[in-house]
Amino acid sequence: MADTHTLLSESLEKTVYIRLKGGREVRGTLKSFDQHLNILLHDAEEIKANGETRKLGIILIRGDNVVMISPAS
Amino acid sequence: MADTHTLLSESLEKTVYIRLKGGREVRGTLKSFDQHLNILLHDAEEIKANGETRKLGIILIRGDNVVMISPAS
Amino acid sequence: MADTHTLLSESLEKTVYIRLKGGREVRGTLKSFDQHLNILLHDAEEIKANGETRKLGIILIRGDNVVMISPAS
Amino acid sequence: MADTHTLLSESLEKTVYIRLKGGREVRGTLKSFDQHLNILLHDAEEIKANGETRKLGIILIRGDNVVMISPAS
Amino acid sequence: MADTHTLLSESLEKTVYIRLKGGREVRGTLKSFDQHLNILLHDAEEIKANGETRKLGIILIRGDNVVMISPAS
Amino acid sequence: MADTHTLLSESLEKTVYIRLKGGREVRGTLKSFDQHLNILLHDAEEIKANGETRKLGIILIRGDNVVMISPAS
Amino acid sequence: MADTHTLLSESLEKTVYIRLKGGREVRGTLKSFDQHLNILLHDAEEIKANGETRKLGIILIRGDNVVMISPAS
Repeated sequence: MADTHTLLSESLEKTVYIRLKGGREVRGTLKSFDQHLNILLHDAEEIKANGETRKLGIILIRGDNVVMISPAS
Repeated sequence: MADTHTLLSESLEKTVYIRLKGGREVRGTLKSFDQHLNILLHDAEEIKANGETRKLGIILIRGDNVVMISPAS
Repeated sequence: MADTHTLLSESLEKTVYIRLKGGREVRGTLKSFDQHLNILLHDAEEIKANGETRKLGIILIRGDNVVMISPAS
Repeated sequence: MADTHTLLSESLEKTVYIRLKGGREVRGTLKSFDQHLNILLHDAEEIKANGETRKLGIILIRGDNVVMISPAS
Repeated sequence: MADTHTLLSESLEKTVYIRLKGGREVRGTLKSFDQHLNILLHDAEEIKANGETRKLGIILIRGDNVVMISPAS
Repeated sequence: MADTHTLLSESLEKTVYIRLKGGREVRGTLKSFDQHLNILLHDAEEIKANGETRKLGIILIRGDNVVMISPAS
Repeated sequence: MADTHTLLSESLEKTVYIRLKGGREVRGTLKSFDQHLNILLHDAEEIKANGETRKLGIILIRGDNVVMISPAS
């Protein structure tokens, strides 16, 4: 069985999508993560419900806000 | 008494349905899980209330968002 | 004083009702549980407010969603 | 100083009222409790806002749903 | 620096006001407390927004519901 | 790097503003705090959205209700 | 892999933006942080949805309120 964190290790330096509690969605280049799913992204953008984006730059997301993480396909 | 995690071990590489807090539902192939119920799915889809689906691909779900998990019958 | 978990041990292989946070109610055959009140049910059904049921089959409920558990009388 | 759990020890086999998060109220005979305030009641009833009651029978309440517990006076 | 729990030790056998999450307010004679701020009150009353009171008698409040505690001045 | 708690140590016996979850704001003289950010205030007042105040006197705030703390400038 | 906290170490004495649960946003000079993401800011301002700001001065934010942190670009 693969470790649940393997997905994140393999996604380092690649684009990931992160859905946050409350419905927000951000994407960016995964630079770092830890066992709490605190996530460090570069070149992050917020993706709004209408598809518009807002540049966020470098962000550190506190893990307890994360619903799911997905690599860009 | 079976271990509560036995269901998940037996469902590896099979399709599972996951209901999330807030009412969302996703399904996908279970690739991995851990004791927090962090869940790694491949070929995941979100199932909307009207039955429509939205492709999510590979997703890592943070366990605290999970309400229940069910194997495809 | 009986252990609070005795109720669950005595209910193994029997029908239990589980009320979840947010008001949902499910029933099924109790197959397993653990100290977090993670619950494994077989032949589970969701019971809607109007009394209708929806088949869920085998489900693993994450314990933090549980409000109360009751054996079928 | 009395231990906060003394109230519960003295209430074993007696009727207690329990207010739950979200405003629900139940009463029943206290059979067991633990340090998380998981509560086992027999002959439990839900008391609705209009004073009507609904029989619940034997219930195990997960402690994190409890707001307050009161012995019947 | 006084210990934050000193206020409670000094308030034993005296009237305290407790504001709960969700806006409810109760007052009563403080009989016991512990490090989680589980609180045992005697002669407790709920104080409604319009100033009316409802007798609760003896209550054990689970600490995670507490917003703030204040001695009667 | 200063310790995050240094702000509180330096604010003992001085006026602090505390914003609570749910939007309430209180101010008072900081008498004590601990590592959970449980806070003991004297001469506390609630500050309402319209700027009106309501005297609270001595209050112990359970730390998990705190959003932010600020010394009076 | 960079440590998730490296971003914060590198941002000491610089301006950071912090988005809080509930949608509030503050910015200020990062003076300190700890492993819970408790954050000490100087010269902090709240940034309202309409772009207006409100001066907060020195603030200590309790980490569990933090959604994400971003250095000023």
